[in-house]
Amino acid sequence: VHVLIFGAAGMIGRKLTTALVAGSPLAPIDALTLVDVIQPKAPPGFTGALQCTAADLSVGQGLEGFIASRPDVIFHLAAIVSGEAEADMMKGYRVNLDGTRLLLEAIRLEGLRQGAAPYRPRVVFTSSIAVFGIPLPSVIEDDYILAPLSSYGTQKAICELLLADYSRRGFLDGIGLRLPTICVRPGKPNLAASGFFSGIIREPLAGQPAILPVSDTTRHWFASPRAAVGFLTHAATCDLAPLGGRRSLTLPGLSVSVAEEIEALRRVAGDAAVALIHREKDPAIERLVETWPEAFDTARADALGFRADASFDAIIQAHIEDELQTAA
Amino acid sequence: VHVLIFGAAGMIGRKLTTALVAGSPLAPIDALTLVDVIQPKAPPGFTGALQCTAADLSVGQGLEGFIASRPDVIFHLAAIVSGEAEADMMKGYRVNLDGTRLLLEAIRLEGLRQGAAPYRPRVVFTSSIAVFGIPLPSVIEDDYILAPLSSYGTQKAICELLLADYSRRGFLDGIGLRLPTICVRPGKPNLAASGFFSGIIREPLAGQPAILPVSDTTRHWFASPRAAVGFLTHAATCDLAPLGGRRSLTLPGLSVSVAEEIEALRRVAGDAAVALIHREKDPAIERLVETWPEAFDTARADALGFRADASFDAIIQAHIEDELQTAA
Repeated sequence: VHVLIFGAAGMIGRKLTTALVAGSPLAPIDALTLVDVIQPKAPPGFTGALQCTAADLSVGQGLEGFIASRPDVIFHLAAIVSGEAEADMMKGYRVNLDGTRLLLEAIRLEGLRQGAAPYRPRVVFTSSIAVFGIPLPSVIEDDYILAPLSSYGTQKAICELLLADYSRRGFLDGIGLRLPTICVRPGKPNLAASGFFSGIIREPLAGQPAILPVSDTTRHWFASPRAAVGFLTHAATCDLAPLGGRRSLTLPGLSVSVAEEIEALRRVAGDAAVALIHREKDPAIERLVETWPEAFDTARADALGFRADASFDAIIQAHIEDELQTAA
Repeated sequence: VHVLIFGAAGMIGRKLTTALVAGSPLAPIDALTLVDVIQPKAPPGFTGALQCTAADLSVGQGLEGFIASRPDVIFHLAAIVSGEAEADMMKGYRVNLDGTRLLLEAIRLEGLRQGAAPYRPRVVFTSSIAVFGIPLPSVIEDDYILAPLSSYGTQKAICELLLADYSRRGFLDGIGLRLPTICVRPGKPNLAASGFFSGIIREPLAGQPAILPVSDTTRHWFASPRAAVGFLTHAATCDLAPLGGRRSLTLPGLSVSVAEEIEALRRVAGDAAVALIHREKDPAIERLVETWPEAFDTARADALGFRADASFDAIIQAHIEDELQTAA
C-alpha cells in the first residue's frame, strides 16, 4: 500500500505517521509520501520507500507528480485553523478550499489520462464540527443542516460537498471526517478560543496554572488525539458503501462538561492539580462557546465501526502516556 | 434604485425584467443593467438608464465594471441547468460555481476599494431544491441537511455557503432562494427529466399530445413562473435580519401529485385536454423521480412573507393568462 499524507507536519499528521509506521489496519505500507508546507520529518523505523517534501498544496505545487505516483490512500489533513481563516479570508479560501479542489481535480485528471489504468484512490478528508452553526439542538443528528458561522467552517462544508460529488462520479472513494474538538491537545497553549478545554487539563498535569474562562456547566464534544488517529486509519480501510451519497460523517466523541473534565482530572491527578485551575470569566469566549455544539447522535459513524474514547479519564490517561511519559 | 440582473435572457430573467419595468416592490428603478451570455433584449417601456450586455460571468468578463457602477440590487440567476452540469462537469463548475464566486469577490473588492464609500448590495441568488438528496423525509424541514446527488445541486449548495459567508462578513446582504420546480414552464418541451410535470399541462392546453412517464401517485413541489418572479422581487426588498446566519431558504410551493395535476387540468380545460395525456412508463425517469423531494415545511420563508400559488388550478390559469392569451 502506498500512502500519501498532505498536512503531515501538523500535530495529527505526525501522530498518524507514527501510527502507520508502528502498524495499522493499512499495513503493510510499502511507500509513504509525506507533504506539508514545511518539510515533514522522516519517521524513525520506516523501511519502505519514503518521500518527505515541502510543497504548497494551495497552489497545486508538485501535485501532479504526487498523484502520478498513484497512492492508494490519500489523507488530506492540510488546512489553516479557524482563527487564521477568519483573520485572513483569502488565505483561508486558498488553502482550505482551493487546495482541496486542486487535489480532487488532480486525482480526476490522473484517472482520465489517456491509456492509463483506472485510478480511484481512497481519500480521507478531515472536516470539522465547525460546519454546524446556531440554532443547534442539544443533540445534533446526522441529517442536520450544515450552516457554518465561520469562514473555516464554510470551507470545510464546501469541501465535503466537493468530496461527495467527485466520489459519486467515481473519480475517487472519499470520506470526510468531522473530528470532535481534540482534547487533550499537546504542546503550548495557543490562541484558539477552544484552547482552554485542553489547557485546564494539560497545564495542571505539567504543574502549571491554567485559566478557565467559561462556566463549569459549559458542555462540548471531545476526542483524544489517539482516537483521532484511530478514526483516520479506520476511515482508510472500512467499507464506504453504506454511506451512499453522503460521504461525510460526524464522528463519535464524548459530550463532557467542564465540571466533568475537572472531576476526571481530580480522579487521575488529585486535588493539587485541580487547584491550579483559576476561574476568570471571559465574556467574549463565553459568547462564542454558546454557539458551539454540545453533543451529537453519530449513528452513521457508529454503524461503520468508529468508536469514541471510553471516558474522559481515559482521555487524560492517554495524554499522560503519549505526551508526558514519552517526554520523560 | 439601480438593478443588475445576471442571467437576464433566460425564462425567469425575462419575466423578472418585465415585472420590474411594469412596477414592483423595487420601484422606482432608475437604472437597469441586463447581462447574459447572449445579449438580453431591451424591455419595452423602460425609461431609465438601460444597459443590455453580453458577457460571460464564468470568467468574470466585464464584472469589475458592472460592480463599479454599484447596483443596489443584484439578481444572480445565471446558471447552466442540471442536465448540462452533469454532462459537462467542468462547464458546470465554471459557470455555476466559479461565476458566483467571482461575483461575490468583485463585490467584496469594490467595497474595500481605497477611499471608496461602503458598498453592501442586496444579492438575490437562485438556488434549487436539487440541493437535497435521498434519504428524504416526506416533508423536509428548514434545517434538513443539504446532500445533493448531482453536480448541479452540489454547485448550488456551495454557492449558498459562499453567499452566507460573504453576508456574515458584511460584504453584501445576500439571500438564496431554493425555487420549487417551475410549473407550467412555457416554451417547447426540453430534455429535463422533470419536463413532463409541465408537459402534461402545457401540451394539452395547446391541443398537443403529452407523455406521462411516471405513475399518477408521483408527488412533487411546484411554483408558477409568476410566483417565482414574486419571490425574487420580494427577496430584493424584505428585511433579512430574521434569517440570521442562514441566508438561504426553501420557498413555499404546492405539493401536488400527478393525479391532482390532471384533475386540475380537467377542471380548467375539460376532458378533451386530459385525453391528450398518454401514459408511457419510463423506468429511468421513475427511478430518478423517486430521489426527488415531495413536500417541504417552509416556516422560515413563510415568516418572511413569501407566498405560494393559491392552487394548482391557479397555476394553470396563470399559464393561460401569461402565455396563451398574450401570445394570441
